Amino acid sequence: MAGPDADAIDRSGGDPEPESEHAGLDFERMLFFSDAVFAIAITLLVIELQLPDLPERPTGEAVASALASVLPQVFAYALSFATIGLYWYAHWRRFRYIVRLDVQLLALNLVQLGLIAFIPFPTAMIGEHGDQPLIVIVYAVSLALAGVIGPLTWLYAWRAGLTRPGLSDRFVRFVAVRGFSVPLVMVGSLVVLPVLGTSAVEIGWLLIAPVQWLLNRGLRPIETGHW
Amino acid sequence: MAGPDADAIDRSGGDPEPESEHAGLDFERMLFFSDAVFAIAITLLVIELQLPDLPERPTGEAVASALASVLPQVFAYALSFATIGLYWYAHWRRFRYIVRLDVQLLALNLVQLGLIAFIPFPTAMIGEHGDQPLIVIVYAVSLALAGVIGPLTWLYAWRAGLTRPGLSDRFVRFVAVRGFSVPLVMVGSLVVLPVLGTSAVEIGWLLIAPVQWLLNRGLRPIETGHW
Amino acid sequence: MAGPDADAIDRSGGDPEPESEHAGLDFERMLFFSDAVFAIAITLLVIELQLPDLPERPTGEAVASALASVLPQVFAYALSFATIGLYWYAHWRRFRYIVRLDVQLLALNLVQLGLIAFIPFPTAMIGEHGDQPLIVIVYAVSLALAGVIGPLTWLYAWRAGLTRPGLSDRFVRFVAVRGFSVPLVMVGSLVVLPVLGTSAVEIGWLLIAPVQWLLNRGLRPIETGHW
Amino acid sequence: MAGPDADAIDRSGGDPEPESEHAGLDFERMLFFSDAVFAIAITLLVIELQLPDLPERPTGEAVASALASVLPQVFAYALSFATIGLYWYAHWRRFRYIVRLDVQLLALNLVQLGLIAFIPFPTAMIGEHGDQPLIVIVYAVSLALAGVIGPLTWLYAWRAGLTRPGLSDRFVRFVAVRGFSVPLVMVGSLVVLPVLGTSAVEIGWLLIAPVQWLLNRGLRPIETGHW
Repeated sequence: MAGPDADAIDRSGGDPEPESEHAGLDFERMLFFSDAVFAIAITLLVIELQLPDLPERPTGEAVASALASVLPQVFAYALSFATIGLYWYAHWRRFRYIVRLDVQLLALNLVQLGLIAFIPFPTAMIGEHGDQPLIVIVYAVSLALAGVIGPLTWLYAWRAGLTRPGLSDRFVRFVAVRGFSVPLVMVGSLVVLPVLGTSAVEIGWLLIAPVQWLLNRGLRPIETGHW
Repeated sequence: MAGPDADAIDRSGGDPEPESEHAGLDFERMLFFSDAVFAIAITLLVIELQLPDLPERPTGEAVASALASVLPQVFAYALSFATIGLYWYAHWRRFRYIVRLDVQLLALNLVQLGLIAFIPFPTAMIGEHGDQPLIVIVYAVSLALAGVIGPLTWLYAWRAGLTRPGLSDRFVRFVAVRGFSVPLVMVGSLVVLPVLGTSAVEIGWLLIAPVQWLLNRGLRPIETGHW
Repeated sequence: MAGPDADAIDRSGGDPEPESEHAGLDFERMLFFSDAVFAIAITLLVIELQLPDLPERPTGEAVASALASVLPQVFAYALSFATIGLYWYAHWRRFRYIVRLDVQLLALNLVQLGLIAFIPFPTAMIGEHGDQPLIVIVYAVSLALAGVIGPLTWLYAWRAGLTRPGLSDRFVRFVAVRGFSVPLVMVGSLVVLPVLGTSAVEIGWLLIAPVQWLLNRGLRPIETGHW
Repeated sequence: MAGPDADAIDRSGGDPEPESEHAGLDFERMLFFSDAVFAIAITLLVIELQLPDLPERPTGEAVASALASVLPQVFAYALSFATIGLYWYAHWRRFRYIVRLDVQLLALNLVQLGLIAFIPFPTAMIGEHGDQPLIVIVYAVSLALAGVIGPLTWLYAWRAGLTRPGLSDRFVRFVAVRGFSVPLVMVGSLVVLPVLGTSAVEIGWLLIAPVQWLLNRGLRPIETGHW
């Protein structure tokens, strides 16, 4: 009785149709709820940072070594912050082209938020036990799962006709591939874990952001050339 | 001297009337404040997740069993995340049809937010003591209370004339029943607690989301058929 | 060279004037930043709730008494939630009539947010040490300070010409008095502390919300009669 | 092939161009995401405040001295709250003149948010170990870094043509200098550390806010004179 669009709620009314200004507010609420979860998850990372207990009247050296001991946690903070930031930026970019919602898209989005909000936990673990291969694997898989759902959302939205009209297949695929690249690198880099150890893997992840950047710059002419 | 609408503040002015753009901003502030509380409560769930202390140089097995010991807490995280997510989605849906505010609606909404923001506490308890019947009951009742206030808000808004015109009685009742269903199942499932134990109850709750889903799909034709 | 309005930034442009759509966004950013701080402070209250440690395999009675021991903290949670909620509602109401910003108003608002964000700390203290008169005093003064700045902001905005035109003096005073009433009751009730003890004071605070409510209902005819 | 504006996304469409209403929402999402991170970081400061453990039935004196021992942390709370507040206000002010986004601006903004969200950690450290020169230095450098990125963002936006047209060079420089002043004072004041000790430095920081204030008032005629 209803085509694939029957569940869809767009800005200019749904079924049963709310007034158009409401439809816009619905869309905004979903985006701002998502933004809030991203923002809280990214900011909660800091509460895992904890200076070890110091003696009553610590020497300067004791303070310095306590600060040094906290550096792996600061590294984990920066890595997770950059990853969540990249994921937020990807979310932001995807929803420039998604103009309507349906209940499946809301559910997919909620699953992503659940995985994003989970990240402070593996971050705390890797900050404390970054030398444990199992912890490194749990961290990589957690962050990859949170990332993979993004392009899945994008592909779903496109198939369900929730994106704005006129997107070329090539552009849709480009966005999806770009979205899968970060989680792939995170998990893929685990193959060198047995050979190079946990530190090499963690340092390797630092390359994700600049590589993404270069990819974006290199691919932009192709991207815009097809519009 | 004043009918039931005397306290009401709608988008196009109240009493004393603010400018119409202000009225819209008032409405948005209430929604975004609500969204923020939902988003923070849902994201704070993660800070209860804590890996048990490990020895200085733990073996891989020690790490694995520490991770395994944290699984009930991850389960509780997922369950509460899904429940708050469902409640947020219900809130979002209700306010597609509520177009005006009054002070009673604001108060009801604030009570719901207080119950939503409380959820991280029973979640932490059930994550740690999920085998204790009393804790399971406290958890179920807390989440049910947070849910029950939602359809009450909806029924109040409809009676007070704060919903947009033209909603059929049948639709209003449908939304209310759907809203009561999650809390009812949460509390109702407690009857099997003495027979089947805490684990069965907790696993049973996992069925809430898919059941809701099927209900929604099955009932949609009826719903839209009456518009 | 500049009148009192020289610093003011209103929705339709300031000095140097941003585009009008920007001015509206400026105003919204300030409101949403405020809402976010209120929402986070109100939601952070929950992380102070902590079940005492239980033995490995606790009896039902041990669980019940642990839950009972946490009730004063739940009471403190509810009290602070209601107070922050009332303050947020007052903030929301005030800014229905404030249509322009200046730097002093932003500073006053920031001071209020700093005092609101501080509330989880005295709440944690009174939850744990609610029988200590000094803690009760610190709690009452902290919450009163966070409240008192609200009507001060209102009076400043009115004097500086930042409210929308046409507000009667009587209405302005009415809003201010209503705003001062909660902090006054909180601090004023401390006079019975030496006689009736800490519990009486805390229970007395529960009357704030219903009293406010009755006041609002009783005064509304007067209020609207002067418009 | 593309000028400096090729990456830019403005309110009236980008490349590939989203619909104009979307472009506005993109801009808002970035601002609200930023506001949320500022708001969460500023509100998380409070969770570092912790009353020392008290004996079972503490004397009034024991409570008073526990409260007194927490004062340095309250001082640190106030100082960091004021600093983040100032930075938020500067961010708010800058984005009154920035009307378009590009990916570099988003990246710079994200780096600033990462540094802002980090502030609760040095705040916790200085609250507990404010007498340690090394901690004071880490605190000052952390807050200065979070501040310095602000005017860099501003200068980048101006060079990349993302600010609204018609800003005078003098105004752009004025905003940049004002932005650099807080971090400069924070780090510069460290030169008196060896002579006057940590307390003098911390008390000196309290002067930042009123000095900024006077600067703003004094310079406003010059500023507006050039518009």
